[in-house]
Amino acid sequence: VKIEIKKPYLVFLGDVVGEPNAKTAFGLRDWCAGDCLAEWSLDGCTIELGLKRLSPREAAAAGAKSMVIGVAAVGGVLPDQWITELIEAMRCGLDLVSGLHDRLSDNEILRETARHLGRTLYDVRHPSGPFRVANGRKRPGKRLLTVGTDCALGKKYAALALTAALRAATAAVDFRATGQTGILISGSGVALDSVVADYVAGAAEDLSPANDPSHWDVIEGQGSLFHPAYAGVTLGLIHGSQPDALVLCHDPLRRHLNEFPDYGLPDLRIAIECYLQAARLTNPRAQFVGVCLNTSKLSDTERARIFERVEHDLSLPCFDPLKQGIERVVDNILAIR
Amino acid sequence: VKIEIKKPYLVFLGDVVGEPNAKTAFGLRDWCAGDCLAEWSLDGCTIELGLKRLSPREAAAAGAKSMVIGVAAVGGVLPDQWITELIEAMRCGLDLVSGLHDRLSDNEILRETARHLGRTLYDVRHPSGPFRVANGRKRPGKRLLTVGTDCALGKKYAALALTAALRAATAAVDFRATGQTGILISGSGVALDSVVADYVAGAAEDLSPANDPSHWDVIEGQGSLFHPAYAGVTLGLIHGSQPDALVLCHDPLRRHLNEFPDYGLPDLRIAIECYLQAARLTNPRAQFVGVCLNTSKLSDTERARIFERVEHDLSLPCFDPLKQGIERVVDNILAIR
Repeated sequence: VKIEIKKPYLVFLGDVVGEPNAKTAFGLRDWCAGDCLAEWSLDGCTIELGLKRLSPREAAAAGAKSMVIGVAAVGGVLPDQWITELIEAMRCGLDLVSGLHDRLSDNEILRETARHLGRTLYDVRHPSGPFRVANGRKRPGKRLLTVGTDCALGKKYAALALTAALRAATAAVDFRATGQTGILISGSGVALDSVVADYVAGAAEDLSPANDPSHWDVIEGQGSLFHPAYAGVTLGLIHGSQPDALVLCHDPLRRHLNEFPDYGLPDLRIAIECYLQAARLTNPRAQFVGVCLNTSKLSDTERARIFERVEHDLSLPCFDPLKQGIERVVDNILAIR
Repeated sequence: VKIEIKKPYLVFLGDVVGEPNAKTAFGLRDWCAGDCLAEWSLDGCTIELGLKRLSPREAAAAGAKSMVIGVAAVGGVLPDQWITELIEAMRCGLDLVSGLHDRLSDNEILRETARHLGRTLYDVRHPSGPFRVANGRKRPGKRLLTVGTDCALGKKYAALALTAALRAATAAVDFRATGQTGILISGSGVALDSVVADYVAGAAEDLSPANDPSHWDVIEGQGSLFHPAYAGVTLGLIHGSQPDALVLCHDPLRRHLNEFPDYGLPDLRIAIECYLQAARLTNPRAQFVGVCLNTSKLSDTERARIFERVEHDLSLPCFDPLKQGIERVVDNILAIR
């Protein structure tokens, strides 16, 4: 089920203009800098990551294994003017990795070139299976899942930060990616929202397989139980992940669901109740260990005030992975036996 | 999104032995007898539906439009020895309809024959889209969804019985199928558990589109919120269906989830609470109108006792579509404005 990509990466920026279109590339630079050997772009590109600039040939000679398309072209399509460079990268020995909607493997020239040269094309948005129905049986190893009051408010970020903090605390830990950027960062994972519905919980089971009893899988959350379009994915991920620990992610400034103005955000206490109820179906010992608040737009005073209020209301430590507070959450996690 | 199949049917039984392998055929006979013009089988078949026996040629001459494979072969595969007869049916003018795992359209001879003759191959287990993300916007028309404490305990049956009873009460009503047998019975629908996870709620929205304010869509439920493998499908179906009315289906003799012996069944009161909580995200007016109990293995005395107990506990009318009690549920439905 899981994609496994060879590192280190050459990050390809195409001819893209505008930072919002390069979110993936910046995510790679920020979260797996050690795996990003260099960057490469075409004429007209305005993005710079600040990495060494190497051509596919130079990057391959320096040890790169895969060229990752770190940008989104308009509509998620694969622009014709990139094809020559993608073929050149394969000729130099690199696999190709894409999070675009268009599949690399649907492009006949790329597919035939890859087959001929023995390269692999990774379309991380399109999981390929084989998939299976979940069995619901508890497996050894500890698991943490980030959940949220909405989409796009920091569940991946929280999971990456917790993985790093647990590792710093010398815990045995793996980040488990469930979306395309997470998969590129960690080099493996499964794009859960693209799995056939019947197999979502089964794919989530396979994503964090049985492990040592003291090992932690930190699993990137998806969607929200309170989202009219994506809650089903969230519930399947919860059930298959069987989390021992949950972290609630929330954006205190958000007034309604992202792109769904008719839908408000749930009260945090109700969110916690609903997530626990869902998680305890497959793991009766599931518990919350902290709350991740996106406070990037708040002053220090405002942050302190909201941390205090939420900690008082929920009796859980708050943190913002970019600012402060992760230590007490890590303590809570490591206290779980 | 929705499949639309031409009726009436010739029901094809292949060379299958044993009634459990012919569940679909019996479902068709029981629930859309008027659409089943005849049956046809190969040497060695032991199943008889009691319909007129007509060859594809005779059936087509009598007005049949589609030949439906009403049996499951071992492993859901398409047996080689059926191919000649399937081609013959297309030659006689019939479309082919299958609920097998194997796709008719993956068989090159069938695909080419269909293309050449202008016939359609329907693989009802494999919805083909286009799909979209749900928008969560409330649409006019009334909707009823059957939900359950487990899989395979009568959600389709309950929905079909309620559709028939509402129609008998002269309500404007449509049955909306979400699984393969339901699709064959009604001639349209979408196999929701085979849709990519992100689009389940959107497909459920498309399945019961905007309608007259007094029109009822009776939607076949899938899975259960309390199922470790399938709850995600159930939740997406609930959110996309935006049900005004819910019916809880339960088998009072079942001691654990079907094929999941580690998982017990939820308390009916808790089940009702959880389903209402889920449904009210997209329709705050969602309410339960009745409980469907599978009492086929109970005596009349036992049935009366359990009806009385459940009605007392839940303050909802109970019914068994094969036995009694549907009238009060229909009254509850028609009282919703």
